[in-house]
Amino acid sequence: MDGYAVRAADTFGASEADPARLSVAGTVHAGEEPAVEVTAGRAVVVSTGAVMPPGADAVVKVEATTEADGGDAVDVRTSVAPGTAVMLAGADIAAGSRAIGPGTKLTAREIGVLSALGVGSVRVRGAPTVGIISTGDELVRPGDPLDSAAGQIHDVNSHTIAAAVEAAGGEPVVYPHAGDDYAEMERLLVESAADCDLVLSSGSTSASAVDVIYRVAEERGDLLLHGVAVKPGKPMLVGEIEGTAYVGLPGYPVSALTIFRVFVAPVVREAAGRGQPEPTVVTGEMARQERSAEGRRRLLPVGLVEDGAGDRLVYPVDKGSGATTSLVDADGTVTVPADTAYVAAGDSVDVALFAPDARAPRVLAVGEDDPLFSRVLDDVARPRFLPVGTREGLRRLREGVPDVVVVAGPATPDGDAVSLGGWTREWGIVVPAGNPAGVDSVADLVDRDLGLVNRARGSGLRRCFDDAIAALAAERPASRRALTDAIDGYELTTTAHESPARKVAAGDADAGLGLAATAASLDLGFVPLGTQSVTVVAAPDRVDKPGVRDLAAALDDCGGLAAPLEGIDPQ
Amino acid sequence: MDGYAVRAADTFGASEADPARLSVAGTVHAGEEPAVEVTAGRAVVVSTGAVMPPGADAVVKVEATTEADGGDAVDVRTSVAPGTAVMLAGADIAAGSRAIGPGTKLTAREIGVLSALGVGSVRVRGAPTVGIISTGDELVRPGDPLDSAAGQIHDVNSHTIAAAVEAAGGEPVVYPHAGDDYAEMERLLVESAADCDLVLSSGSTSASAVDVIYRVAEERGDLLLHGVAVKPGKPMLVGEIEGTAYVGLPGYPVSALTIFRVFVAPVVREAAGRGQPEPTVVTGEMARQERSAEGRRRLLPVGLVEDGAGDRLVYPVDKGSGATTSLVDADGTVTVPADTAYVAAGDSVDVALFAPDARAPRVLAVGEDDPLFSRVLDDVARPRFLPVGTREGLRRLREGVPDVVVVAGPATPDGDAVSLGGWTREWGIVVPAGNPAGVDSVADLVDRDLGLVNRARGSGLRRCFDDAIAALAAERPASRRALTDAIDGYELTTTAHESPARKVAAGDADAGLGLAATAASLDLGFVPLGTQSVTVVAAPDRVDKPGVRDLAAALDDCGGLAAPLEGIDPQ
Repeated sequence: MDGYAVRAADTFGASEADPARLSVAGTVHAGEEPAVEVTAGRAVVVSTGAVMPPGADAVVKVEATTEADGGDAVDVRTSVAPGTAVMLAGADIAAGSRAIGPGTKLTAREIGVLSALGVGSVRVRGAPTVGIISTGDELVRPGDPLDSAAGQIHDVNSHTIAAAVEAAGGEPVVYPHAGDDYAEMERLLVESAADCDLVLSSGSTSASAVDVIYRVAEERGDLLLHGVAVKPGKPMLVGEIEGTAYVGLPGYPVSALTIFRVFVAPVVREAAGRGQPEPTVVTGEMARQERSAEGRRRLLPVGLVEDGAGDRLVYPVDKGSGATTSLVDADGTVTVPADTAYVAAGDSVDVALFAPDARAPRVLAVGEDDPLFSRVLDDVARPRFLPVGTREGLRRLREGVPDVVVVAGPATPDGDAVSLGGWTREWGIVVPAGNPAGVDSVADLVDRDLGLVNRARGSGLRRCFDDAIAALAAERPASRRALTDAIDGYELTTTAHESPARKVAAGDADAGLGLAATAASLDLGFVPLGTQSVTVVAAPDRVDKPGVRDLAAALDDCGGLAAPLEGIDPQ
Repeated sequence: MDGYAVRAADTFGASEADPARLSVAGTVHAGEEPAVEVTAGRAVVVSTGAVMPPGADAVVKVEATTEADGGDAVDVRTSVAPGTAVMLAGADIAAGSRAIGPGTKLTAREIGVLSALGVGSVRVRGAPTVGIISTGDELVRPGDPLDSAAGQIHDVNSHTIAAAVEAAGGEPVVYPHAGDDYAEMERLLVESAADCDLVLSSGSTSASAVDVIYRVAEERGDLLLHGVAVKPGKPMLVGEIEGTAYVGLPGYPVSALTIFRVFVAPVVREAAGRGQPEPTVVTGEMARQERSAEGRRRLLPVGLVEDGAGDRLVYPVDKGSGATTSLVDADGTVTVPADTAYVAAGDSVDVALFAPDARAPRVLAVGEDDPLFSRVLDDVARPRFLPVGTREGLRRLREGVPDVVVVAGPATPDGDAVSLGGWTREWGIVVPAGNPAGVDSVADLVDRDLGLVNRARGSGLRRCFDDAIAALAAERPASRRALTDAIDGYELTTTAHESPARKVAAGDADAGLGLAATAASLDLGFVPLGTQSVTVVAAPDRVDKPGVRDLAAALDDCGGLAAPLEGIDPQ
């Protein structure tokens, strides 16, 4: 401490009322060798970290002293025991003690100990290099344009698996993706086997005519295993290529990442010296029944939500292995044994989290997709929104899973849901810019030869459209069915609110059901048919969740959006 | 799926017994535009990911089909509904839907969604640059040699805080450490303020004569706060320098890291866009009383250990702010309010973990420091050893904290402790190489003018030495006290087993109490005085802990050490 090095015995009996006066014999700063000794009745000024001068056996902190004689002496107002405020050499770590063992993860704290020991460098486990090869003629690199008509899709797995490899402590090496050509696949696999400690491919693992990867593995190495009884992820290869370990991951992103996480990440972690933390597991109550019984062990992706009492509910998020949104809408997995027919609502289940810091979103919203609501969510921390439409949203609210539902009129929530805010939006028919066909009304869609793209049955927009058709049917009069049969494309539905407008923009349709805001944002023409209310309602027992309160506050603010959306009026 | 695109209606009624035969009209591979249509009675070969050919509304997987007519036809052995194994465009994420909101941490899963959307790059929050300046004339860079007599110490904080900054999402910029000179300190602080988003210094924050940093802050910026009522960490500065945010951390590594973790890391995380996860908190039972009542809030470093029933015990690890081992021997902190006099044994306490993946060590050993035991620990995953000596180790065993105690004879554990293994070690007097003074016995230490360095009272080695002195006293006869008074340095004790030998090696002593193994490893001479048993015993209720079983297995193997330690005989 900053203060005075003394002989403790000289302070015995000293107090505020009766301080002990000592003469000041000199100073020792931190980092200098003491040039002065402490003898009886004398003190030496020391700063924190200074070496104790010979003769001294204790330090009195400066706050317990008063300078005297213009600095030539000091009054010590307390008594100290020998050893007070003195740190002995070796008291922290002594020579010969074990400081840090092999296999220890070096965090700031271990680096502190190594620094204190004067260790400037230390041998660490190297990161294993992991080669990553996505396969498939249909793959295009993210950022490059797609030919959707040819079924091209972006290569999801390369960068996803690379990120997962990095998180596990490996060093990913992403190779250009391979087509389904034997020679090319062989060249890439052999090259990566020479360069890397482990080779991963994804896709091309099922036994169809164009699948060649397993033949490469068999001819240039050894195939030890083909297929595991796990869903998602059944088609998995394990083997070696030219002596290098090889794992063939399935092509579907959810399957690929699941197989990587379950079977490959532990190996990469071990090679990287990261040890094997068990996956972080939390327990929760299943919010609704999930059927299973696939004959293979299922790793069911699930989302988490906290109910009003702070208890954790678990709900399945299974949109199929091909849907990448399953990845971000889920927080972890529940393992369902191969022989289990279903997990019942109310069952207590263990959720293996995707990451130790994975948590339930602060607010879980479901229901109608709406551009203004999307913007509002940007002002809320850690929300999750599942665009399932108004009808399905209300169903889930009754099931007790979501905190909040976005309801587009004319549907209304049950009486006890609490409104957090709402607005009206203008809906109608989206047409090409300038409305070249002169579309004017629902009747035009019935009577003229116009190709429409509709919305899915559960959406609020569709319900408004169907009400308008019913009104036209009553007016003529005609059967509702006769009118819808006469609309070309009435059954051509899309699940997302912008899709019909985008079909119009692409020239694939003459008209699409949509919002004024969407038409404006895509520079398309718009035939208004009506306005529709959008209300955000909360389950009564969730109103006080912090995330729900944040959402309510953000909705209150949405009248002040910098650029209000066309055709949307905050109420 | 790999299989056949069909009109679902053509499969209605098909079964294993009565398959439907369809003619094969062509093939569509993934990544190519369909050049063929599916009409009634026809099928098209498709691979997973292929675009559906016009006319088809379902896919029959290949496993449910049998080739016929040499490939010109196929027998479908099941009936499928329209839409089976078909993924609609937009079913994953549709245009206009909200995919990922601002402030989302990009893990492998989010990168999957971005890849699927074809997003090749995305704007992310930049890492804030954080300048780090350690201050103090006594600091030497780790790896460079120390002048210990001048009180030099290695600079612990620079790299420790840098690692903590990096873990919080910031980009550390480590500046050369500054001495306590005003001009140099000013130059470094102003330079780093110009270069970085945040400047951190450590040390030099208390108000002593040589502390200049707060004067720089006052003259070149603004000092908003000086001192917080937190232990460890009281001397903290908050302000700005030339308009850049500035925090002065205390100099003691434990204090500096604590203040960083509590006050600075949240700001760095927020600036880096990492959000604010609450610290991971676990609950456990306080294993022994800890006095507090310092008048300021205390962040008590604690270790975790699981008892035999798997319940979590929490024990204080407070070796003072100057001891870097407090960092690695602790797993988190318990907050003790300023007005709390003590935390009682048995109290349930919340532990804020240092990291989300921090966990109790798999085995907690305490007791006598021993070179062979240190080696054995290298073969055990995630052990923790606290070298507190035999006597204190046995006391802690009775308290119920550690799993295992290393006991050096002649002390013996209570009857119900379970021995996991042991060995004998040769102890005696370590002397310079060649034993120039011809030291031969304990009597030489008493009768001749030799400077000794002893071991601390609680160590097993010291107890053997005292027994040897008692035997000599009985033999002469003389009082024990008369003999110890005659030994120069008998009271000069060290806590670590190698320290006396190292004093001898450094020429600071003529003799040191120590082990044959230590003398051999330091190339010193050795005068054997006896052998001593070392036994590793486990608490009876901890014997079945996996970590304790691993330790027992490693002890079993220690007879097979590649290079047995001199003077140590595995039993």
